[in-house]
Amino acid sequence: MKDTLQPSELAYVPFVSVANMMRLIHTIGPGQMMADMASVIEADFKRWPEFDKTPRIAAHSEEGVIELMPTSDGAQYGFKYVNGHPANMARGFQTVTAFGVLSRVDTGYPVMLTEMTLLTALRTAATSALVTRLLAPKGAHTMALIGNGAQCEFQAVAIRELCKINTLRLYDIDDKATNKAAKNLRAQGFDVTTHTSPEDAVTGAQIITTCTADKQFATILTDNMIGSGMHINAIGGDCPGKTELHPDILHRSDIFVEYPPQTRVEGEIQQLDPEHPVTELWHVFAGQKPGRTREDQITLFDSVGFATEDFSALRYVHAQLETHPFFDPLDMLADPDDTRDLWGMLMRAG
Amino acid sequence: MKDTLQPSELAYVPFVSVANMMRLIHTIGPGQMMADMASVIEADFKRWPEFDKTPRIAAHSEEGVIELMPTSDGAQYGFKYVNGHPANMARGFQTVTAFGVLSRVDTGYPVMLTEMTLLTALRTAATSALVTRLLAPKGAHTMALIGNGAQCEFQAVAIRELCKINTLRLYDIDDKATNKAAKNLRAQGFDVTTHTSPEDAVTGAQIITTCTADKQFATILTDNMIGSGMHINAIGGDCPGKTELHPDILHRSDIFVEYPPQTRVEGEIQQLDPEHPVTELWHVFAGQKPGRTREDQITLFDSVGFATEDFSALRYVHAQLETHPFFDPLDMLADPDDTRDLWGMLMRAG
Repeated sequence: MKDTLQPSELAYVPFVSVANMMRLIHTIGPGQMMADMASVIEADFKRWPEFDKTPRIAAHSEEGVIELMPTSDGAQYGFKYVNGHPANMARGFQTVTAFGVLSRVDTGYPVMLTEMTLLTALRTAATSALVTRLLAPKGAHTMALIGNGAQCEFQAVAIRELCKINTLRLYDIDDKATNKAAKNLRAQGFDVTTHTSPEDAVTGAQIITTCTADKQFATILTDNMIGSGMHINAIGGDCPGKTELHPDILHRSDIFVEYPPQTRVEGEIQQLDPEHPVTELWHVFAGQKPGRTREDQITLFDSVGFATEDFSALRYVHAQLETHPFFDPLDMLADPDDTRDLWGMLMRAG
Repeated sequence: MKDTLQPSELAYVPFVSVANMMRLIHTIGPGQMMADMASVIEADFKRWPEFDKTPRIAAHSEEGVIELMPTSDGAQYGFKYVNGHPANMARGFQTVTAFGVLSRVDTGYPVMLTEMTLLTALRTAATSALVTRLLAPKGAHTMALIGNGAQCEFQAVAIRELCKINTLRLYDIDDKATNKAAKNLRAQGFDVTTHTSPEDAVTGAQIITTCTADKQFATILTDNMIGSGMHINAIGGDCPGKTELHPDILHRSDIFVEYPPQTRVEGEIQQLDPEHPVTELWHVFAGQKPGRTREDQITLFDSVGFATEDFSALRYVHAQLETHPFFDPLDMLADPDDTRDLWGMLMRAG
């Protein structure tokens, strides 16, 4: 139907569908792509002061949350739309779906629309891997993965890529999820054991990654499960009322966060005094503050996911489109010959 | 390329392109469509307390602004992405482009993605017409249109549809814009005169609509130009530092606004004390406060455009798609067979 109303080049926005995102991931390789994205995320953390930052704008309902996450570095602007609906799974929908847009600041024109359900899984795992490389104890060889849903395998693959961790101990409240993850991860060459309790799963692990999805205060990890020297990635607690760790763990840990104004509201530290000391990750990446300083230190990445990570992911994908043409042109912007003559454009199409 | 990776029904989001939006407008008729949208906008103003409201989230730069405008009525969620870049025109780009998404609150899934450059022009004009019908003096027959850019003709057509105004007096700082608008509006059967000064244009008009685009404090209208009993729609002043009216006019007018927390920052009233009394339009639509009370009263609609108006426009278009199939299915959402097996979906596509 488009031939009679063919828009100009300016009106087209490259669109990366889910099918095309999968093609891109397979062309580059999932592990390589997350490693490459981690480099971009790290580079953007290092130039943190250049970004316009704001806590995400959340619309909460009984069933879940819909969020907009914008940011800009002054040259490009990006935002992500993402939902989180724990009850979706039982209805055959994804808990988390997302899409995003990258734009030019100078014209305000979008330059890419992309699916971000897969891309969010990649960037979340890439960020965890980056922080794990920064903070995990020396010689770490085993990771416990608590919560074996949609995010689990991405975490494992990214952390292996950056941290050489090949031994995994899995636990989920639903053993079907654990079996699914075990099968997928063994197919990727991991050494995997499955466990029937979180206590059992964390035994002998130096790294614990929690990525559960309940929208309620939960206590996936209790204090007695956490030995000295561990590194914890707490991925799942990412909105008000949603946490995974007992507060005693937080008091024993040195806590690293992305953006305190958002993490204080959404992260594990919503359980703590608003003045409780935390370290901003960008200070560590930029060499302005230390990461791990002692072998017996417990380090905690209180991950909630921040807009700059999505921005890094968007600009990474946008750069890939130059060599991998995995996109369709989308007629999303009106483009009249005379920019003031929108009415005339409409009438001439009639 | 889509055949080998065919997504399920759940993964598709209906997309209304610019070409399809033009088809929809021509099928319904632009005047009729704006009148229908005005009814939806009015209905949503009447149930104002049901909406989650927040001032739009703006990213300002030297060249312009990029904004996200979300809102929800608890059942549906909508947001618009819109830019405003006055310098775009000289570069062959639109000053304002926009797109938007409507979603279900219960699942968080988008149900429509649509162009909103044209739709914003329609909803802005529909809102002006609705407010003009509410506040204009009895027997008004002539409107001055100051600023003859992309929004001008839409304003005229919508206001004629709702208020039976057929006589127009045009002025723009650039007479090419005035000539373009005069030609377009005469083709629509309006009685049009063109003028070389705003003073001249407003003479004999009972309604003045300003829709200029400069991003700076401007004084399009001065106090001596405004006679008693007039109604003014100030459309163009819609971000910090961008105004169109001399403050003396504001002091003589009764001022009607959409959402005070946004209008105080972006509207004409940014020039006034933050406590200056204004009337919220929804109170008037809901019958809780009076509109025009005297023949000699100057009424001013300090329009900035609010998210609920975009929400009304989105749900209007979405409803039309049931009978007018002017959309393409977009593979925007990942939809694995097992919702927890995103990795497995990715691997099977490989």
